[in-house]
Amino acid sequence: MIQTLPGFRDFYPADCAARNYVFARWREVARRYGFAEYDGPILESVELYRKKSGGELVGQLFEFTDRGEREVALRPELTPTLARMIAARDREFKKPLKWFSIGSFFRQERQQKGRLREFYQLNCDLIGDGSPAADAEMIALAIDLMRACGLTKDDFFVRVNDRNVWLQFLAARGIAAERAPEFLQIIDKIERERPEVTAAKLAPFGIEPAELERFMAQPVAKLGGALVAVEADLRARALTDYVTFDPRIVRGLAYYTGVVFEVFDRARKSRALAGGGRYDDLIGLLSDGAVKHPTFGFAVGDVTLLDLLRALPHTAARLDAATKAASAPDVYVVITDEAFRPQALGLVSLLREAGRRVDFPLTAQKVSRQFQTAEALGAAHAAVVGNEWPQVKLKTLVTREETLVPAADLPLLANVTGRGADAAGPGPA
Amino acid sequence: MIQTLPGFRDFYPADCAARNYVFARWREVARRYGFAEYDGPILESVELYRKKSGGELVGQLFEFTDRGEREVALRPELTPTLARMIAARDREFKKPLKWFSIGSFFRQERQQKGRLREFYQLNCDLIGDGSPAADAEMIALAIDLMRACGLTKDDFFVRVNDRNVWLQFLAARGIAAERAPEFLQIIDKIERERPEVTAAKLAPFGIEPAELERFMAQPVAKLGGALVAVEADLRARALTDYVTFDPRIVRGLAYYTGVVFEVFDRARKSRALAGGGRYDDLIGLLSDGAVKHPTFGFAVGDVTLLDLLRALPHTAARLDAATKAASAPDVYVVITDEAFRPQALGLVSLLREAGRRVDFPLTAQKVSRQFQTAEALGAAHAAVVGNEWPQVKLKTLVTREETLVPAADLPLLANVTGRGADAAGPGPA
Repeated sequence: MIQTLPGFRDFYPADCAARNYVFARWREVARRYGFAEYDGPILESVELYRKKSGGELVGQLFEFTDRGEREVALRPELTPTLARMIAARDREFKKPLKWFSIGSFFRQERQQKGRLREFYQLNCDLIGDGSPAADAEMIALAIDLMRACGLTKDDFFVRVNDRNVWLQFLAARGIAAERAPEFLQIIDKIERERPEVTAAKLAPFGIEPAELERFMAQPVAKLGGALVAVEADLRARALTDYVTFDPRIVRGLAYYTGVVFEVFDRARKSRALAGGGRYDDLIGLLSDGAVKHPTFGFAVGDVTLLDLLRALPHTAARLDAATKAASAPDVYVVITDEAFRPQALGLVSLLREAGRRVDFPLTAQKVSRQFQTAEALGAAHAAVVGNEWPQVKLKTLVTREETLVPAADLPLLANVTGRGADAAGPGPA
Repeated sequence: MIQTLPGFRDFYPADCAARNYVFARWREVARRYGFAEYDGPILESVELYRKKSGGELVGQLFEFTDRGEREVALRPELTPTLARMIAARDREFKKPLKWFSIGSFFRQERQQKGRLREFYQLNCDLIGDGSPAADAEMIALAIDLMRACGLTKDDFFVRVNDRNVWLQFLAARGIAAERAPEFLQIIDKIERERPEVTAAKLAPFGIEPAELERFMAQPVAKLGGALVAVEADLRARALTDYVTFDPRIVRGLAYYTGVVFEVFDRARKSRALAGGGRYDDLIGLLSDGAVKHPTFGFAVGDVTLLDLLRALPHTAARLDAATKAASAPDVYVVITDEAFRPQALGLVSLLREAGRRVDFPLTAQKVSRQFQTAEALGAAHAAVVGNEWPQVKLKTLVTREETLVPAADLPLLANVTGRGADAAGPGPA
């Protein structure tokens, strides 16, 4: 038998419902924040990805030559596509823009926990505003994306920094700005590196580890950069409980220019749940200077987030309820006698036109077997069509309550629905 | 500047909203019919596609060799993935199964109207029931998918046939069953072919064109096959106005085994909007005989459908309204004085927590400019934060009505929403 490719996933209905639950939360929250959805193609010119500094992703591309001799690649990220799209129709869109997208991405990397070759990402970008208010709006959005999935401040936190804090640190010590990338790489690895290795790396800069520790332990007011304004903004939103200002967060990629953040689970058991920051020069770089816009962007992946939602009992319960409700019928129409099939089909149509989810037996079956099917599907109600026609017996399956109602009234009954608010698919109401 | 690849699309917010409008209708209707959503990977082993008879798709694959020396392809259709998934976990799922999926597909074919290299499809399959009741359920689903997009019986119709009608026709004339595929190819092309060419092709079968015409003009009761039962079922659902029984519909692909259908716009200006049929042997074939299930499946594409929805005034209006509403804020919070920014941010948070879509200025701006932005975004209301705090002026932008309300009450006001029912994203409520 042919297998699913390694690093790729099948989404059976329960998996798909869990995925869709997360997508629905993402969409709902992004829209609350005034973001508009966009999307690009799955396949792009390889060239688009070669332009962006940071060669790691280019090394992981699924790339090939198409029949038109074009070098193409499955998209490993969305930012180059966004830059291409903005550059192509820049004048049509008044800034600032708030755009989000949910889609598949592909990286040909070694499989490990939380890393797959095809994964989903929510990408959110605020384009054309360089203020700390924009930084804070994006951090608040990231927090609310987590909260909408049922995560509380005991489950996750956001580590925030401004790269300029370090540029000022270096400048104050007379260290040339060109050496900043090398220095930021040391900071990026400081948590995973043995202290003596870090000390050795810092020596050429003439910086003592203790000096670094003292600097990093300072409050936001001393660290400076945009952090003071960001903190004030988040305080006005009552979100400071979710945030730690932490100079160790610089994000590895070279293109960030200001505030950066990463979202982690409190237990620190997994990779970052989300991350991003300000990259004021990247759209200019990717568009060959055609357009320049200060931009703040971040991404949330589905893999690590779903792992966490499944691991925590309170979020797992929500996810489970949503999964169960995703395809449960509101009404299962029971046909007691095939002579009533036409009436039953009429009722099925009527109920569906009223927006109800309805299922029924396609072939003649014993009534007891039909009730078993209704239960197995998780139907909220059974509507029994038989000798009482044009009345039907409406049975609530959980309570076993039974009432006789005119078939024509059934679609009007407000309570004939079994869905919870979380039974959503991947889109908003 | 790097361009979008030919045959691939960018979805700017308005395009994405139109796409999402269609996805939302698809999801909603499939769920009303008791279908559960599933999905597979975008990339599969090429081998999976080589198994299926009908070499056309294999010739159009985007295929390449990955770094693990696997021959892989971007999926051109979903049925082989479905067969693989069913075969892998067949026993876990009680039949019949009703499964649907919405996703991207890829074909490296010449570009022409209604054909792209990346397109979306809704795939619906009813697995494990071979009855005409299942055929009718699927045809009814296809009809309701169209109706949910605002299309009426004056806009589209479904052409239905049963391939067995032709097998019986051939048998009655003593023509061997092995010659059926060749004969069905003639029928498949009969509408596009010059009559003399068709006559020449029919000659080896000893069939006169007039005889064929007489046969095809017969009512359903004479044509036989499953059509009689299908018609009775659709009549019980009051759907016969949408259906034409037409023996010329056989669908080109070799694997169909029974009832087949295609959906067309009444003006017949475009390719089929949807098509499918019964393929009782295909899952067995694709799974190397591991599992066998009578199955009825069909697909609806986004390209032709959206072309039609945009071309008809009444559906274009619905699409347009949905597109406009997709990202319009419920409330734009106007900040009259930066001193009130913290209060404004608090109000923004409160409203968003209540599920409202809210936007506001990130930097200090004149009040008149803020109102312009609110109008440009299509906001339903403006909430003006200023000297009246803790009261805010709530202005309905269309009517210019203005009331003073306590800020804390604002999230509770039921009417503070600007969204129509069609403002949905690609998922269900």
